[in-house]
Amino acid sequence: MKQPQHSTSVIDVVLRRLHELGVHHLFGVPGDYNLWVLDQVLEHPEIDWIGTATELGAAYAADGYARCHGFAAVLTTYGVGELNAANAVAGSYAEYVPLLHIVIGPTSTELTEETLVHHSLGIGDPGGFARAARQVVCAEAFVRPETATAEVDRVITTCLAQRRPGYLLIPSDVALAPAELPRSPLVRPDPWPTDPKNVAAFTEAARKRIASASSTVLLADGLVERFGARAPLAQLLTQGRLPHAILLSGKAVVDEHGPQFLGLYAGAAGPQSVRDAVEEADLLIRAGMRLTDINTSGFSHGFNDGRGIDLGPADARIDGRAFANVPLAASLQALTPLVAEAGGQGQPRRTHEPRPEHAGCGPLTQDHLWRAVVAALHRDDVIAVDQGTAMFGIAPLPLPSGALCLAQPLWASIGYSLPALLGAQFADRSRRGVLLIGDGSAQVTFQELGAFGRYGLTPLVILVNNDGYSVERTIHGLNAPYNDIPRWRWCDLPAALGVPDPLTFSVRTADALDAALAMATAARDRFILIEAHTAPGDVPTLLRQFVQARQ
Amino acid sequence: MKQPQHSTSVIDVVLRRLHELGVHHLFGVPGDYNLWVLDQVLEHPEIDWIGTATELGAAYAADGYARCHGFAAVLTTYGVGELNAANAVAGSYAEYVPLLHIVIGPTSTELTEETLVHHSLGIGDPGGFARAARQVVCAEAFVRPETATAEVDRVITTCLAQRRPGYLLIPSDVALAPAELPRSPLVRPDPWPTDPKNVAAFTEAARKRIASASSTVLLADGLVERFGARAPLAQLLTQGRLPHAILLSGKAVVDEHGPQFLGLYAGAAGPQSVRDAVEEADLLIRAGMRLTDINTSGFSHGFNDGRGIDLGPADARIDGRAFANVPLAASLQALTPLVAEAGGQGQPRRTHEPRPEHAGCGPLTQDHLWRAVVAALHRDDVIAVDQGTAMFGIAPLPLPSGALCLAQPLWASIGYSLPALLGAQFADRSRRGVLLIGDGSAQVTFQELGAFGRYGLTPLVILVNNDGYSVERTIHGLNAPYNDIPRWRWCDLPAALGVPDPLTFSVRTADALDAALAMATAARDRFILIEAHTAPGDVPTLLRQFVQARQ
Repeated sequence: MKQPQHSTSVIDVVLRRLHELGVHHLFGVPGDYNLWVLDQVLEHPEIDWIGTATELGAAYAADGYARCHGFAAVLTTYGVGELNAANAVAGSYAEYVPLLHIVIGPTSTELTEETLVHHSLGIGDPGGFARAARQVVCAEAFVRPETATAEVDRVITTCLAQRRPGYLLIPSDVALAPAELPRSPLVRPDPWPTDPKNVAAFTEAARKRIASASSTVLLADGLVERFGARAPLAQLLTQGRLPHAILLSGKAVVDEHGPQFLGLYAGAAGPQSVRDAVEEADLLIRAGMRLTDINTSGFSHGFNDGRGIDLGPADARIDGRAFANVPLAASLQALTPLVAEAGGQGQPRRTHEPRPEHAGCGPLTQDHLWRAVVAALHRDDVIAVDQGTAMFGIAPLPLPSGALCLAQPLWASIGYSLPALLGAQFADRSRRGVLLIGDGSAQVTFQELGAFGRYGLTPLVILVNNDGYSVERTIHGLNAPYNDIPRWRWCDLPAALGVPDPLTFSVRTADALDAALAMATAARDRFILIEAHTAPGDVPTLLRQFVQARQ
Repeated sequence: MKQPQHSTSVIDVVLRRLHELGVHHLFGVPGDYNLWVLDQVLEHPEIDWIGTATELGAAYAADGYARCHGFAAVLTTYGVGELNAANAVAGSYAEYVPLLHIVIGPTSTELTEETLVHHSLGIGDPGGFARAARQVVCAEAFVRPETATAEVDRVITTCLAQRRPGYLLIPSDVALAPAELPRSPLVRPDPWPTDPKNVAAFTEAARKRIASASSTVLLADGLVERFGARAPLAQLLTQGRLPHAILLSGKAVVDEHGPQFLGLYAGAAGPQSVRDAVEEADLLIRAGMRLTDINTSGFSHGFNDGRGIDLGPADARIDGRAFANVPLAASLQALTPLVAEAGGQGQPRRTHEPRPEHAGCGPLTQDHLWRAVVAALHRDDVIAVDQGTAMFGIAPLPLPSGALCLAQPLWASIGYSLPALLGAQFADRSRRGVLLIGDGSAQVTFQELGAFGRYGLTPLVILVNNDGYSVERTIHGLNAPYNDIPRWRWCDLPAALGVPDPLTFSVRTADALDAALAMATAARDRFILIEAHTAPGDVPTLLRQFVQARQ
């Protein structure tokens, strides 16, 4: 019964759809319910199975892959496997990352007739985990053979339309049941459902609003990236010569070396010059903005978000008046000639972040660390940043042009960045992967270093060793034992976890860091770990300001 | 607002109730929503905070603690933290382990009025994670100040009555809101709701059934342990001189060195002599049995479970006739004189498992490995066994008297055993902890080795290194790449993860294993890791028989 009886089966339908969406890697962990399904994956000529140590790591990897590639999938076993992935899938939901969580369960008979099959709760309730998943996905299905293709297509297209994860529970016999491959390609949802009439109305209203503004500034945020509108945003900024800032969750969404780039806006925290420019602008245009507690430093932003022009993923607003079905790409394109016509907005009061000064052989500080790290980044690097001191450290510093920043500014789950980078590396091996992570975060998902080694990936890892949870220490409990963690010998770990020939550095001074970064740049073909020791009380200035602003 | 305004607060009520239940350790991971709450934990004179690297590890540790202690608690942050614990909490549900999952959330105002607070999905739905948790707990509450004590008591007493986990979502301001400590102790549910009339009827029916039986055998299973009925079972077996076997999920629930102990019953797998004795008995008494797919080798058991005497946690049945509210303790006590009166059942056809023979310097085999390991166990050891080759390896071998076996025979989530042992060690430091785990399982949760080091725990760890997922290989895909894992240098890991002065052995022969086990016995005060290399295709006989029986 477990062998497919037909040349193609339900799982082949799923793989066909994934392949149509450009998915060439499927992340996951085997379990005895899914082994025969994995045979079908191995047989697929253009989709590779990527095994990780944990389902949490697999789902984070899928998230990183989807951010580079547009879509991704993770395959787990029933119960134990899927629940291990729950946090990661929820994170993809919070951060608008479309991916498919495929759960292979016991057979249909076992699910419906047997109470006590392993990986179940033992209460004869086959739908419980799907009901749990429903809380953190945009669509889910319990797949049956008769309607398999329709259900698979429904869940995938909902994911694409909403840019959120979806969930398929497929009993193992159903996965291998005969199914015709669909004859026509997936009908993809319009990524930009656009109402031309509303675009025209928006354009007219925007023209007046811009013409009457004595100064205009744009604030860019992460949904521009997540809704695929980097290019029209870049065009608007270039052609319109519009001064612009980013929110923390919009890191690298614009070219941070452009002439009109102001820097990071972080409400009552962050650079005062950017704050003045944003808050004093006569007209503030927001693109893809989410006013989260983290990127506003506890909702301390000093502008009225009911005023100005707000460009949302699907709708636009001018001074609170909504224009439905005017998505980001359309609104940005509409604004481009208007802003250009309105003429130069003058040179922004930009404060260039200085290159790191020579800090010598004194103890390494967070201030030097992040300046030196950012200075060592390359154009087009994929930079995975954990939502800890790493994010607060680099947020105010301009990243290289073309860089992609993988982070979870809303979900903020520690440990995310390491497996996310793993996935991103599979999406595009030509781009260098850089991981910026603290010790407390790295302890959550460090086992996935093994997968970097297994698959020959060679990222640059900067790991801050400062003896604990530094964001928490800064918020409360500076010396509290709950903010302590065990001390690990980080430099021993890559080799111990199977990474071949790693290059590791444990640095305690600025000089040593600079030397390590120079060697890292020259050793692109090796896995590099730089363990940067900083004092437990030393945190990035932005983090300190952030905590003060929230209080 | 974050500081408690009153001498006692809602979290103190929770801690009070935990302390009443004998809980002296609270496992978890800090997050910025729970730091002020952790201050209250630190201030509690008799409850210690035990920090782990992951919430999954914390919840597994709580499970291990609860199995030794009767109850336990794990504290996490909202969203990211609680979802990381979901698999472990579900496992406690499946395996009947009562514990409390305390989630500290954002403030009530943030939860209800702000959409975009970190660790949320960003959709303004404060109850989503509680709805997800509801699928894997027996009771949950969104705690409000007015009803806090009542809700805490309701969830805890439901956990105790049902022997399942419960869930409390406490907004951070509610946790610190003023609350009177309850004046009276928790009214604990009757662990044995007993109907004397039904006990009498059961006794009468059982007397006839036993008197007319030409032979009686008892099959003991894990719910005897989970429902606290080891002592009455032991009394029945001793006084009744009743031949008895165990199921795999009843490992160590009886004294496996007793004169009437038959061994392991595993359906079509397992020793033939036990199979004959169980299946040919004229009367089969089952105590605390769950006929799962794993312990019946795919429901291949050869007895009619509608016949005979079935002693369930709450009810008993004789030939299908149910006696409600005749719980295990009562039914076992009722049977004891009846079986004793019926007279000796004759000597069982017991097959003694031989002590390991001297296997010399050839490659280590699984057969020798498990015999040698079991021979090196001590009376009263707490043995955490991962549901892989380790469980199949030791299941047919008699464990020492008084041993406690921590396993997940139904939920079967790989990686469980390592943090479960961590928790169990806190419950009783006087008992030696032994961990039996394979490499694929250990990669899931190995970071919690750091906590063993941090808190000075010194278990004996036997880690089977055989290059991958051996249970899966045996089921399907012997050489399939999806069953491969990265090769780790296991002996380097304890020290790298902060364990002080570990004693490690990497053994490839029987001689080397025996020497390592001898040294381990002499070094009770050190953390010991024995990495036992076996060939990838070499698995315990029971596992091979199990897979054959399921097909």
